[in-house]
Amino acid sequence: MADTYRELHAWLVETAVLGSTASLLGWDELTYMPPKGADGRARQMSLLSRMCHEQFTQKKVGQQLGELMGQKVDEDAAANVREWKRAYDRAVKVPASLVEEIARSGVIARQAWGEARGKSEYAIFKPHLARTIELQRQLAACLCGHQPTSADEQYDVLLDAYEPYETSANLRVIFGQLREQLVPLIARVRQSGKVAPVEILKRPYPVEKQRELSLEAAKRIGFDLQAGRLDTTLHPFCSGITPGDVRITTRYDENDFGNCFFSVMHETGHAMYEQGLPAEHWGTPLGDAASLGVHESQSRLWENLVCRSEAFWRFFYPKAQAAFSQALGNVPADQFLFAVNAIRPSLIRTESDEATYNLHVILRFGLEQRLLWGELPVDGLPEAWNKGMKEMLGVEVPDDRRGCLQDVHWSQGAFGYFPTYTLGNLNAAALFTAARRDLGDLDGQIARGEFAPLLAWLRERIHRHGKRYPARELVRRAAGQELSIAPLLAHLKARIDRFW
Amino acid sequence: MADTYRELHAWLVETAVLGSTASLLGWDELTYMPPKGADGRARQMSLLSRMCHEQFTQKKVGQQLGELMGQKVDEDAAANVREWKRAYDRAVKVPASLVEEIARSGVIARQAWGEARGKSEYAIFKPHLARTIELQRQLAACLCGHQPTSADEQYDVLLDAYEPYETSANLRVIFGQLREQLVPLIARVRQSGKVAPVEILKRPYPVEKQRELSLEAAKRIGFDLQAGRLDTTLHPFCSGITPGDVRITTRYDENDFGNCFFSVMHETGHAMYEQGLPAEHWGTPLGDAASLGVHESQSRLWENLVCRSEAFWRFFYPKAQAAFSQALGNVPADQFLFAVNAIRPSLIRTESDEATYNLHVILRFGLEQRLLWGELPVDGLPEAWNKGMKEMLGVEVPDDRRGCLQDVHWSQGAFGYFPTYTLGNLNAAALFTAARRDLGDLDGQIARGEFAPLLAWLRERIHRHGKRYPARELVRRAAGQELSIAPLLAHLKARIDRFW
Repeated sequence: MADTYRELHAWLVETAVLGSTASLLGWDELTYMPPKGADGRARQMSLLSRMCHEQFTQKKVGQQLGELMGQKVDEDAAANVREWKRAYDRAVKVPASLVEEIARSGVIARQAWGEARGKSEYAIFKPHLARTIELQRQLAACLCGHQPTSADEQYDVLLDAYEPYETSANLRVIFGQLREQLVPLIARVRQSGKVAPVEILKRPYPVEKQRELSLEAAKRIGFDLQAGRLDTTLHPFCSGITPGDVRITTRYDENDFGNCFFSVMHETGHAMYEQGLPAEHWGTPLGDAASLGVHESQSRLWENLVCRSEAFWRFFYPKAQAAFSQALGNVPADQFLFAVNAIRPSLIRTESDEATYNLHVILRFGLEQRLLWGELPVDGLPEAWNKGMKEMLGVEVPDDRRGCLQDVHWSQGAFGYFPTYTLGNLNAAALFTAARRDLGDLDGQIARGEFAPLLAWLRERIHRHGKRYPARELVRRAAGQELSIAPLLAHLKARIDRFW
Repeated sequence: MADTYRELHAWLVETAVLGSTASLLGWDELTYMPPKGADGRARQMSLLSRMCHEQFTQKKVGQQLGELMGQKVDEDAAANVREWKRAYDRAVKVPASLVEEIARSGVIARQAWGEARGKSEYAIFKPHLARTIELQRQLAACLCGHQPTSADEQYDVLLDAYEPYETSANLRVIFGQLREQLVPLIARVRQSGKVAPVEILKRPYPVEKQRELSLEAAKRIGFDLQAGRLDTTLHPFCSGITPGDVRITTRYDENDFGNCFFSVMHETGHAMYEQGLPAEHWGTPLGDAASLGVHESQSRLWENLVCRSEAFWRFFYPKAQAAFSQALGNVPADQFLFAVNAIRPSLIRTESDEATYNLHVILRFGLEQRLLWGELPVDGLPEAWNKGMKEMLGVEVPDDRRGCLQDVHWSQGAFGYFPTYTLGNLNAAALFTAARRDLGDLDGQIARGEFAPLLAWLRERIHRHGKRYPARELVRRAAGQELSIAPLLAHLKARIDRFW
């Protein structure tokens, strides 16, 4: 057994190392690759993904996993075998031709989406969306092993790629509860007539200073820049390439403080998770993030729970004022704090606040399930989108660019991805609540610029476990309670009470 | 036959595409990789080189090459088969474990070299150099098929990786002739008592302007920046990753005009060769540079023959003056021209002039042969280096940073590489002489900023052929004469006569 495991382990780690080279190529493509490099890069990327897929789905891998399943192996090996088996069973169900077709038509659909979004013309994107949905249905059928008999069955196999062990039935329950609570809460804010002074954040903020201040904050909260970088891209992201090489990106808007600062804090949360994964398990499930919902909990926790808090700005506001004396010199801390905690319904998910954000997600979750199951035809998407925005957030969508064309995900075939954002928010609040309980004076620590205790707590409770436990179990063990909306709601209510 | 060739071709192109991913990783390692990424990068690099080596040395490749050798195939295929066979015969002699170990320990040694150079502490680098040499000896023994019986036999098999078809016996002859002529020529300059006004180049040159001006010149002479980049590294280099992605690097010294400018012109020469290789042959010998000595002829031709010429500065000096009005505003063109053509012994190879440069190379050629053969122990390197610099160039080496730690090559296991620099100088002079003959008023073209005719000539005579001909034959066809020291000497004598 030990020999079989050793052999399998070496082979799959090697496959993961090969895959990690593709991560660097992907990062480079979005940061420094010259335009004419695209064709060569496409050849490199398709070769690497084919080679990784071939290595991972070799017959021998299946045989060895079969041998090891149900055998007595140590706890680490058992967790790896369990997760490898899950991934292997998924991978072998999908014919290479479908994988290729999804990749190929994804490139075309993404281009069409870009054009449609630019022109705000849904008609340009519609046939590509229809094709993407058709391919996702085929994918779901392969993964089910038969034609799915319900919308949930169909959705769950796609969701599994992003949030293993999660189900849409469970999500529907918890998202329903959340929606029920959030809608009146947000309405209350709106009806108060009190508006956060967000213009403070729209003053001139020199780009170089934004970069310096964000990096300073990132370092301070615990991003190890000897094992990471910050670069500039159109859309911020985090890429964990190897255990000692985790890179984040951001974008700069000279007239917007928050766009850069909070996206750097967000990506730093992701990056610190990657840096906290056990390096000795690199290339195995034990060295890999538990799920996207857990990954997002780390980014959201630092972005929202820590870096929008009163305690954080007690520590950091003097630094921000010193960096931006022109914009912030005369702004009292309390006004600034109110501005960065603004809650107000808006059109764009990526620019929305921590309360309304979840309604954007819940809308997409419902729509994508109905689109896939054919309950909602692609023709009806804009209307359904706009209706949902009106019902949930009370806003009128003026055009599809700011409506159903705003996100890239569906064009890339990423159905089942959106829910992980709200799972991240729920997990973040639960973890932060538990950390506060365990660490005592957490606010005092944060206000003194001491972030090490919180990071150590996350390392111990979340990071070091990799995929040892399914995401819900991992968070339950750390937070001491089952997934629920209570911690997030309590947090939001407290913030609203503070300012409204 | 056609089928065999097609199959082999597809397989080896795929291998080359895989290899090109390693080029990007190598570039990243020297530009943007965070320090703690070194271990993971070492694993990625060793895996990629092992995989490439395994793919390239598969039994089937040997069988197919055997089938194709001596068969009637078209001229393109014949050239590819000839070069593949050479490379295959080399590759199968080296066990994969050694290839992997050389790659792995190369990454570590390079990092140690960087640290050692920074601190000017040879002791930090010494154990890594010893290990590197030991691995190169093992490599040479594999390539010889037995323990080498002479220093030349040992050296030639390593040299072949950089300069195919060349031998150290031949190099010793031509380098001997060159040294014999150069030493009195340089002495004549020295004894004249006339000193180039190099302090002109050591004034304050703002870094950002240096970058802009170098880029402008690079673009102007023909570097396509839609298919390339310029970044900053400790040691300037050019990396051709894919046909549409060729990257160069430089370094900046605020108080040195030449360091950046001429290194960018140098690397641009390399880059334009890479950009001129036939993209349709990407991944085959026909799409690959003929040799490093030919590669270096391109960089040297642009750096020295073009960009230090009177004609070039007639065109470009007003731009330089405009960019650096403080440093150059009052400097007459003739003084500036004298300064950039200064000949005087100095410590750093990459900063040395086009005459003394070759003595730096001849020193390294001798030392590396002795290091490999064990005639010179690593303990004795600093002393031997310093002694050689004193004998050949008459200079005292004040510390190892400016002595034996200045170059990255040995840390990467690149033994047999240095001679290609002087081969490049010899080839460059021969090609430029021929281009002048063919193009008529070449100086007039350059003085008008018209570089396209010269670049087109090089594309036609050198670039488009890839490895179609062995290096010496390629240059002979283009230059119309056998390799000799005459064109370079004539060029150097003319420059010396102009200024001294």
